[in-house]
Amino acid sequence: MKLVRYGESGAEKPGLMDGDTLRDLSGHVDDITGAMLDAATLDKLRAIDPSTLPVVSGSPRIGACIGGIGKFLCIGLNYSDHAAEQGLPIPAHPILFFKANSAIVGPNDDVVMPRGSKRSDWEVELGVVIGKTAKYVSEDDALNHVAGYCIVNDVSEREFQQNLTGQWTKGKSCDTFGPTGPYLVTRDEVADPQNLDMSLHVNGKQMQVGNTATMIFSVAQIISHLSQLFTLHPGDVISTGTPPGVGDGMKPDPVYLKVGDVMELTIDGLGKQRQEVRQDA
Amino acid sequence: MKLVRYGESGAEKPGLMDGDTLRDLSGHVDDITGAMLDAATLDKLRAIDPSTLPVVSGSPRIGACIGGIGKFLCIGLNYSDHAAEQGLPIPAHPILFFKANSAIVGPNDDVVMPRGSKRSDWEVELGVVIGKTAKYVSEDDALNHVAGYCIVNDVSEREFQQNLTGQWTKGKSCDTFGPTGPYLVTRDEVADPQNLDMSLHVNGKQMQVGNTATMIFSVAQIISHLSQLFTLHPGDVISTGTPPGVGDGMKPDPVYLKVGDVMELTIDGLGKQRQEVRQDA
Repeated sequence: MKLVRYGESGAEKPGLMDGDTLRDLSGHVDDITGAMLDAATLDKLRAIDPSTLPVVSGSPRIGACIGGIGKFLCIGLNYSDHAAEQGLPIPAHPILFFKANSAIVGPNDDVVMPRGSKRSDWEVELGVVIGKTAKYVSEDDALNHVAGYCIVNDVSEREFQQNLTGQWTKGKSCDTFGPTGPYLVTRDEVADPQNLDMSLHVNGKQMQVGNTATMIFSVAQIISHLSQLFTLHPGDVISTGTPPGVGDGMKPDPVYLKVGDVMELTIDGLGKQRQEVRQDA
Repeated sequence: MKLVRYGESGAEKPGLMDGDTLRDLSGHVDDITGAMLDAATLDKLRAIDPSTLPVVSGSPRIGACIGGIGKFLCIGLNYSDHAAEQGLPIPAHPILFFKANSAIVGPNDDVVMPRGSKRSDWEVELGVVIGKTAKYVSEDDALNHVAGYCIVNDVSEREFQQNLTGQWTKGKSCDTFGPTGPYLVTRDEVADPQNLDMSLHVNGKQMQVGNTATMIFSVAQIISHLSQLFTLHPGDVISTGTPPGVGDGMKPDPVYLKVGDVMELTIDGLGKQRQEVRQDA
């Protein structure tokens, strides 16, 4: 299934894609949140004949594909070629940082650079949505705790990230810096999360291209590792790192986002994102 | 006012301290969350004659003093003498990291060291609860965005924090590593947040002692700085750093928590915390 949240920010309704048609799920669930990602509820939704669901008319705004995200966890430097591009060594363990939940927006909402930002950058990433509580899980069992997958743009202010004295989270947590969605694609529809092509274009020019096959730590390894540290709860989202092609790594000179730029992101089977860039005055 | 949440974890009810008597506020608000920390709601609660509220009988568990915390933000190395103790330079800007919301527990709940933990440590800190949305606020205006204050124990696993490849958050986010409360003491009852004595004892022995007067960055400076990066929302909590005396800085050898240890924390006017230490098998 491709689960969707549509409508105004803060008042999104649950929906389901039936081919290219968006249908209303609100007769069956109140919202797409961690509380309805258990296998039984997903099976119940899967048993619905989509043609019986009301078609959503018009072209509503699409929200983040999951509401009430508990933890918004991010893995840094998880593609060997991206680490090389940034001139940083391959990490011995998954690097973890948090993005603020307040950074989460819909997949096509504007990205707004904060006042003073001159080095805002893009990062297309595979997002993993936890469906079942995970604590001390093995790598073999890890994927059983996944509800599904989505696209995340881990937008990053490099000056805030690198030069405001430590801890990347400052450059990762700006408002609107976490476009998430459009779809929460359930696990059964993603044959191999370690073989997904991904790309990011800016103003129509391809900047990032990669495949999840080149991750340093697989989705299963990441879930197992994090679950040794703390509990992963249904509705937590893990963004699993970005392939080469970020603006900060461009040669001979880095390239950053400008007002009016358009970012377009795709991952195999997970849909597309499109954001326009603005800046706070 | 001293606002309290009492009852079983996940089902806490709102309460108010009337001297040493806990009274039930659930006839007036559903819970103590960001949604009821605006000035109008707090004024309405302040106007209630506490003697008209039902007395809570028995000795219920006390929960974290605020529910539904949005962001659990922490400032690192914010006391000059603690930075010296750790052998680290004074930062040029407030160091920011996140604790996972899933680490939050009540002030007297057990602290459970995760499997494999050998270097779990304590940190008594002043917690600041945001009451009014803050974006691009000045230092002069910053404290107007504070609803109140509380105690936070920023429990920290030093091995996870320092040696699992970067970003402190790994050692800060273990389940139960964020005891918060017992009271949310409203701002009007804290004459000067930069002159509060604080201490932490382990098994009756004083380990930490300090005063918020020696913070490198004041509460107002921290709020103003963070609000340049992202929006602070009602119900966000900022833990503002710890004074000297953490176990990791002990001479000649560091000291870490052991199963059965008892931590006791106090900050002027904000009450007391007491946690026993356990460990996951």
